Amino acid sequence: MAIAEELAKKQKAISIAEFFEKNRQILGFDSIPRSLLTSVKEAVDNSLDACEEAGILPDLFIKIETRSKNNLTLIAEDNGPGIVKEQIPKVFAKLLYGSRFHSMKQSRGQQGIGISAAVLYSQLTSGSPAKIISKIDKNAPAHYFELLINTQNNEPEILVDRVIDWDRLRGTRIELEMEASYIKGRRQSVYEYMKDTAIVNPHARITLVEPDNNQVIFERATDKLPVQPSEILPHPAGIELGTLMKMLRYSEENKLASFLRHSFSRIGPQIAGEICKRAGADPEKDPKALTLDEARRLHEAFGKVKISSPPTDCLSPITEELIRKGLEKEHTIDFIETTTRPPSVHNGHPFQVEAGIAYGGNLPKEDKVEILRFANRVPLLYQQGACAITHAIENIKWRNYSLDQPGGGVPTGPAIILVHVASTHIPFTSESKEAIADVPEIVEEIGLALKDVGRRLNLYLSRKNNLLRRREKEEIIQKILPRIAKKVGEILERPTPDITPIVARIMGNVFVHRVVKQNGEGCDVEIQLKNHGDSVHHFSLHETIPYDIKSPSPEPRKIPLGKQSDYLWRISLKPGEQKAIIYRLDIEPEEASKLPQLVVEGIDEELITGAKVVNV
Amino acid sequence: MAIAEELAKKQKAISIAEFFEKNRQILGFDSIPRSLLTSVKEAVDNSLDACEEAGILPDLFIKIETRSKNNLTLIAEDNGPGIVKEQIPKVFAKLLYGSRFHSMKQSRGQQGIGISAAVLYSQLTSGSPAKIISKIDKNAPAHYFELLINTQNNEPEILVDRVIDWDRLRGTRIELEMEASYIKGRRQSVYEYMKDTAIVNPHARITLVEPDNNQVIFERATDKLPVQPSEILPHPAGIELGTLMKMLRYSEENKLASFLRHSFSRIGPQIAGEICKRAGADPEKDPKALTLDEARRLHEAFGKVKISSPPTDCLSPITEELIRKGLEKEHTIDFIETTTRPPSVHNGHPFQVEAGIAYGGNLPKEDKVEILRFANRVPLLYQQGACAITHAIENIKWRNYSLDQPGGGVPTGPAIILVHVASTHIPFTSESKEAIADVPEIVEEIGLALKDVGRRLNLYLSRKNNLLRRREKEEIIQKILPRIAKKVGEILERPTPDITPIVARIMGNVFVHRVVKQNGEGCDVEIQLKNHGDSVHHFSLHETIPYDIKSPSPEPRKIPLGKQSDYLWRISLKPGEQKAIIYRLDIEPEEASKLPQLVVEGIDEELITGAKVVNV
Repeated sequence: MAIAEELAKKQKAISIAEFFEKNRQILGFDSIPRSLLTSVKEAVDNSLDACEEAGILPDLFIKIETRSKNNLTLIAEDNGPGIVKEQIPKVFAKLLYGSRFHSMKQSRGQQGIGISAAVLYSQLTSGSPAKIISKIDKNAPAHYFELLINTQNNEPEILVDRVIDWDRLRGTRIELEMEASYIKGRRQSVYEYMKDTAIVNPHARITLVEPDNNQVIFERATDKLPVQPSEILPHPAGIELGTLMKMLRYSEENKLASFLRHSFSRIGPQIAGEICKRAGADPEKDPKALTLDEARRLHEAFGKVKISSPPTDCLSPITEELIRKGLEKEHTIDFIETTTRPPSVHNGHPFQVEAGIAYGGNLPKEDKVEILRFANRVPLLYQQGACAITHAIENIKWRNYSLDQPGGGVPTGPAIILVHVASTHIPFTSESKEAIADVPEIVEEIGLALKDVGRRLNLYLSRKNNLLRRREKEEIIQKILPRIAKKVGEILERPTPDITPIVARIMGNVFVHRVVKQNGEGCDVEIQLKNHGDSVHHFSLHETIPYDIKSPSPEPRKIPLGKQSDYLWRISLKPGEQKAIIYRLDIEPEEASKLPQLVVEGIDEELITGAKVVNV
Repeated sequence: MAIAEELAKKQKAISIAEFFEKNRQILGFDSIPRSLLTSVKEAVDNSLDACEEAGILPDLFIKIETRSKNNLTLIAEDNGPGIVKEQIPKVFAKLLYGSRFHSMKQSRGQQGIGISAAVLYSQLTSGSPAKIISKIDKNAPAHYFELLINTQNNEPEILVDRVIDWDRLRGTRIELEMEASYIKGRRQSVYEYMKDTAIVNPHARITLVEPDNNQVIFERATDKLPVQPSEILPHPAGIELGTLMKMLRYSEENKLASFLRHSFSRIGPQIAGEICKRAGADPEKDPKALTLDEARRLHEAFGKVKISSPPTDCLSPITEELIRKGLEKEHTIDFIETTTRPPSVHNGHPFQVEAGIAYGGNLPKEDKVEILRFANRVPLLYQQGACAITHAIENIKWRNYSLDQPGGGVPTGPAIILVHVASTHIPFTSESKEAIADVPEIVEEIGLALKDVGRRLNLYLSRKNNLLRRREKEEIIQKILPRIAKKVGEILERPTPDITPIVARIMGNVFVHRVVKQNGEGCDVEIQLKNHGDSVHHFSLHETIPYDIKSPSPEPRKIPLGKQSDYLWRISLKPGEQKAIIYRLDIEPEEASKLPQLVVEGIDEELITGAKVVNV
């Protein structure tokens, strides 16, 4: 027997449920904290989608009960439209079953895998069935099911099916027992997920009961449902040849021109005619009869005829206001900018990118910036490193926008970057829906949005940073120079020289310095001023002392301040210019050595050496 | 009609082929260069697996032909065992079909998705069928198929099925037309993938014909096949309750004890008895009759009874030698260390981690370190940011191992880190098999392997770095101090002082300094030596000059060197100790000022200030 015949005996089909039973990490069940979060997420996504489709203001209730260590029960309940009895087993206990897969509109769930994946994980780790209640109308009965997934054929196994009393108007409730753990106080937690979800879904009320019975209510901030995204036909741009051929083959139209008009968005009679002409195809021909070559030419013609962008009422962006709220939720912040890109298309699907950047306040200065990712209003908490949003951030040279980027990659600094991608089809890297794939069109749009907010951040920071850098430089110089001066003085056996003028010179600052010399019974005072910078400076100089000054030159304004007097000179200094103010004090040199520091006003602190700056 | 009834109409099952048609990015087809690489990879993985299973030395031929811009044909041919006629359509044109999914042994393919995913992508983007030839024996006929996948039901559609002449002994050939692009000269390319594959599979000969007809042959380096990993039963550690229940339910055994012995590795009669006792279960009971509660207790007992680790002959590590080759392949390197961890278990699957680190040579100093990831001898080129290997690297505080880690994350420096994970089941994050999921056991083992090689790198670098840092510090000090000394000298209107002794003092170095003073007709020379460090130093001091020295103290050894003489003193200096060597020269001071620099020997350059260090 040939080896191939030996090997052939092992060949067999694998059911999708078996596949995911063995590869549950692909669905987002790779560790016990994440497994809980994934389950919650799938339940919440489904409830929000269902409520919005039915035009109901969502009211969600999530409860997590500890059974034993690493074993808990998750209860998720909504006030949604409910599920008809016949559909309940398949919706919850069959993978790849759902209503949103074939629909071209923005929704959270798109794959028909989510909630049944949670059921699969639950039965795998607890051995127990999922317990479902659903009621579709106040006069309809509530159905109670206990369900398992038969993984060998991916079909529901119904253990219990009965009508029960349920004191709800309508809605759906799922109860899952599973190996999982509830953690608090870190970004990748159920609580954080709920909070982020509540922010970008302000029309939802979400109640979370934690294992310690602590109840958190995320109250709704608005009674207005978001605009319902409408369903659209696929757009010709980005449709693939194979998909087009399949559409042709299964079309119910019998003329190519009407196939084009009724299968795609943005194709009217005129465009349909143009496409057929370009493709050298007969508009009257039966679409099912097109050859591979004709289909190819038709596909090429899609790229050559000018077709308007897809309609965008199928998209529902977060909006600028909610992006701001998302960014401000936990931090005080000095600066926020947001942007919304015009809609674009990937593989025939419209999509739109929104971005925001927050800076300063109490954000940690040394850490990598925090990244908040959202896809169709769902917060993405895992797999940051695999996501197109992260990659787009990493691709930007943030130094051009005043953020550090040591070693490349995600920049560091006191900032948060938020990105939301909305689309009729989010191309996730895996069924766990935590990272967006590197589809070139999407990466590019995210990059443009980030550069836009980056430019505005840069404007804000460039002035601020300049001054900060000066201050840092001066601090270093003022620490090190005196020490060295002292050392060198020692070697030369001379007193340590005053190096303040050198500091001002090195910094290009305005140097202000008071020299007091004994002269007979009193002191002569000279205030030296020199501009080492390369621009003109105007400022006020205050000498606020409890003495009368004599023979000042130039003459100051004198403002009485209780027992003190504030002598005020208006100073203008051109680059390189040097001035002196002189006056006389009738006090002992010892007293004169205790004179307070000179004060200047109307100039940035970083530009002055030798005096205190007070700017009101 | 209730809303739920409206919504129910849209509910339907989704075929797995339809699912991936819409979500091809999940399979690794998200951009045109990656799509080609993914297709090549699936073909190569299959061929290598098949050859190894059949005990054949692999001879692979890959050819890429450009058809038009972004449209090419991939041809992949092997000398493997071939595929029997009946299996060909399903192997290539049905997703989730294969021989390795249910097998507990290390292999490249495990999912039954790979090659049919490439076929799906090909038909989607080119509209053309896959063309397959396979022959299982020199006397058997060669079968030629043209195949499409019917995405609506995930079944093969056979367009052509005939016997042809094929001048091969046996093997399989696949030809796929697709939208893709061939790129050269970057890490994520077909060429790089081939090279890495050839390194860790030295028993394979791989021929690559590039679109410009350039032919590259990766010749085999050994005629020895790697040890064939054997197939094992699942290990009780890590098996999930749900899986156990399923195994019980479908068991062909009719007694619990024999079920345990024949379903798991490492369970003999005694262990089986112990498990039943712990679980309070009757060893004679029919496994199919166990209740949920009994199954739970059995599952708990698995964790309480001591069971040996799983057998590891199911694993086939790369071995240290090939890791070294992998690391050296493109760079000259100063240092390499590798390690192989003992086998461990995740979710009932044995796995083993190997790691290596290379440092120095011509590796780029400023970049992030290069990461080479392998899973079951397959190079992973995409999704680095999503991979447990990367996360384990990021979790390590590399500063403890002498590598910089600016902003955290992947360290920077002239280093390459290689990690190989071998397992009967690699938990990938998605069907594209480019990133390993964060399964805690695996992340931990990778971390331990990295720390092991990291410690050895640290030993090597710590001495090297110490000296480098000293030198850098001294360079800075020697640049800045003189400038400042000059400046301060100017202000004080005094000549610039010699600051060499200060440098030595600041650096904690040995200070060597020659002072020449005119005295009558000749010069008195004093060589000052002071140890500012905190350890004893021994070294030789050479005064190599073309003159005779007079009245030296202490007396040197004199070695004639042509016209010159080398005067040599042996010096020992305790911390803080100061010594002087004096002698007299009968030369003019002007000549004396031209004396060459003093030379010391037998001490690190970084520890001396004021003399040249020569160490042979």
